[in-house]
Amino acid sequence: MSDTEPAPDIRADLASLSELVQRPDQAVRAAAHERQLTLTKPAGSLGRLEDLATWVAGVQGRCPPREFARVRCVVFAGDHGIARHGVSAYPPEVTAQMVRNFLAGGAAVNVLARLAGAQVRIVDMAVDDDLEGVPDEVTRWKVRRASGRIDREDALTYSESEQAFRAGMAIVDEEVDAGTDLLVTGDMGIGNTTAAAVLTAVLTGQDAVSVMGRGTGVDDRGWMRKCAAVRDGIRRGTPALADPVRLLATVGGADFAAMTGFLLQAAVRRTPVVLDGVVSGACALVAHRVAFRASDWWVAGHRSTEPAHAKALERLSLTPLLEQDLRLGEGTGALLAVPLIRAAQATLAQMATFAEAGVSDRDQPPPR
Amino acid sequence: MSDTEPAPDIRADLASLSELVQRPDQAVRAAAHERQLTLTKPAGSLGRLEDLATWVAGVQGRCPPREFARVRCVVFAGDHGIARHGVSAYPPEVTAQMVRNFLAGGAAVNVLARLAGAQVRIVDMAVDDDLEGVPDEVTRWKVRRASGRIDREDALTYSESEQAFRAGMAIVDEEVDAGTDLLVTGDMGIGNTTAAAVLTAVLTGQDAVSVMGRGTGVDDRGWMRKCAAVRDGIRRGTPALADPVRLLATVGGADFAAMTGFLLQAAVRRTPVVLDGVVSGACALVAHRVAFRASDWWVAGHRSTEPAHAKALERLSLTPLLEQDLRLGEGTGALLAVPLIRAAQATLAQMATFAEAGVSDRDQPPPR
Repeated sequence: MSDTEPAPDIRADLASLSELVQRPDQAVRAAAHERQLTLTKPAGSLGRLEDLATWVAGVQGRCPPREFARVRCVVFAGDHGIARHGVSAYPPEVTAQMVRNFLAGGAAVNVLARLAGAQVRIVDMAVDDDLEGVPDEVTRWKVRRASGRIDREDALTYSESEQAFRAGMAIVDEEVDAGTDLLVTGDMGIGNTTAAAVLTAVLTGQDAVSVMGRGTGVDDRGWMRKCAAVRDGIRRGTPALADPVRLLATVGGADFAAMTGFLLQAAVRRTPVVLDGVVSGACALVAHRVAFRASDWWVAGHRSTEPAHAKALERLSLTPLLEQDLRLGEGTGALLAVPLIRAAQATLAQMATFAEAGVSDRDQPPPR
Repeated sequence: MSDTEPAPDIRADLASLSELVQRPDQAVRAAAHERQLTLTKPAGSLGRLEDLATWVAGVQGRCPPREFARVRCVVFAGDHGIARHGVSAYPPEVTAQMVRNFLAGGAAVNVLARLAGAQVRIVDMAVDDDLEGVPDEVTRWKVRRASGRIDREDALTYSESEQAFRAGMAIVDEEVDAGTDLLVTGDMGIGNTTAAAVLTAVLTGQDAVSVMGRGTGVDDRGWMRKCAAVRDGIRRGTPALADPVRLLATVGGADFAAMTGFLLQAAVRRTPVVLDGVVSGACALVAHRVAFRASDWWVAGHRSTEPAHAKALERLSLTPLLEQDLRLGEGTGALLAVPLIRAAQATLAQMATFAEAGVSDRDQPPPR
């Protein structure tokens, strides 16, 4: 470690986060379950949509739940030193190019956000480019240009990790204060699936091969390099397991630290989050280690084809809403699931009851 | 059989349907696949969404595909004689009560249609109620009040079956002529999962137990009665296998005959259909027997918990878009999948290409 001992405040803050994160409202959940039984459908016939509606009611603390008014997909962008060493099919320059594509509205995340009734917010945490001409609101949280290569050196200093972590928390505060009532995680960064694999392996006790995927489509030689990098990253990261901020500094990156702070502060602010793919899954594992109740505030939008993602979801006991074999990141899989969440809310809130509709429930005549 | 021999025209019509149904445009499918490779994402990274987008382009015959302009969920309602004999948790009166609930906008299908940007059209084929006061457009295709109990008697006469089949075809013509470019199947009828199980068993060569489910939630004694009814229905239906209209008369019902004609005529009119649950699956099996290319025009919205549905989808080689453990019918599972179909269309049509966005593709620098 190149920097000085951590200031005590972040450790105290992490301990208090664990206290600050409470469970969603259990009484409202129970009321939602009761309400489902009165709606004009056989009990349980909407399957997993009913469980999802109960979750929506619980996190909102109201039954029937209200329509989500402001849905925001926050994309944490960052470059990773490891990407300069052949672990990806794409050159690192693509991260900055894609940030500009996001801002122009031409990427998959933009298209899917429009359909989901969501807005996209891009946050540059560590893109290896000055992004000249890009609005300050995108770059003002930036910690550095690219993270260190995690197979040989730390991604960040401890204070950079803390700074990024706090940036993620501050972004949640901004969003919630502006009325956001559903957050969606997104990521952009060539090489970020390598860091996600390392973090997931360290946090679930897996070896490199169990968490390795092709990312955006690396070839066989690249796969071997990625495998070695993940193996070395696991070796470097494991000793940092006890301190989440140090773990994120050692084998994560500024984008990962920010998303972890984001996930925790969302739970503190009682605001639900739709998780995207393997990067979100890795950050969720770190956040869950800080505050085990936080995962009650999250729903897994989908399961990607990255093996580490499946391991993370399993450890978090989160069942993905969709399985569409996506492996794009950006928030795409989470945004695809937003219509399901809206559907769950709407059925619980808008369907007629047996009494209202004059429909016979099982074993009893219509109520009028 | 109580009626006279079938007039030759329907048999000739069925033979011509087999000729009239052509495959979606293969050249456009190929163009869609090529276009996917130019969009700003790693090749294949949108997973099944890319296959779905290719299907949309193929059935529309245009690449990039256009936004669906008029999406209509057609709910075929009918009562089934078998429902008076304890195979369902709900009394048969619920069918008519639910038709009124649909028209008042209070059912799950109404809520999910609104979210999917679709309209609901209710067609009474054989509801056991005069439905006084209900608009003529709902009841004008009605063939009779309730179908016969299929364990002991035919559901319909041959001519009723033909009439219902032709009604389904006529409804497609009305819809397509009015500009509908995406059709969604729906069903309502206490007892209809029993008929669906029988049809599926007959068409896939399964025994009763392999296709049986709890429907809307029948109890153990009801399950035994349903099992016996399905077994007897299979015995009665199997000899009619060679003649689809007779099969639908023997163990289907007016709602099933109409939906089968509907699925075939949609394929003739080159209009894509999103299939809902076990009733849609059974009708799709019958329609597929008439014209094997028809299934290229359909997508399976979801897989329900009814065992017969899984058997039908397997036989049709259709992979369901969603698995949410639904068992409601009405069109709900299909409507839940409509946002995915819209997302597939939108990504293929709206995403920027590498060239447009100035993003480096793999192994090559940005194109400007």
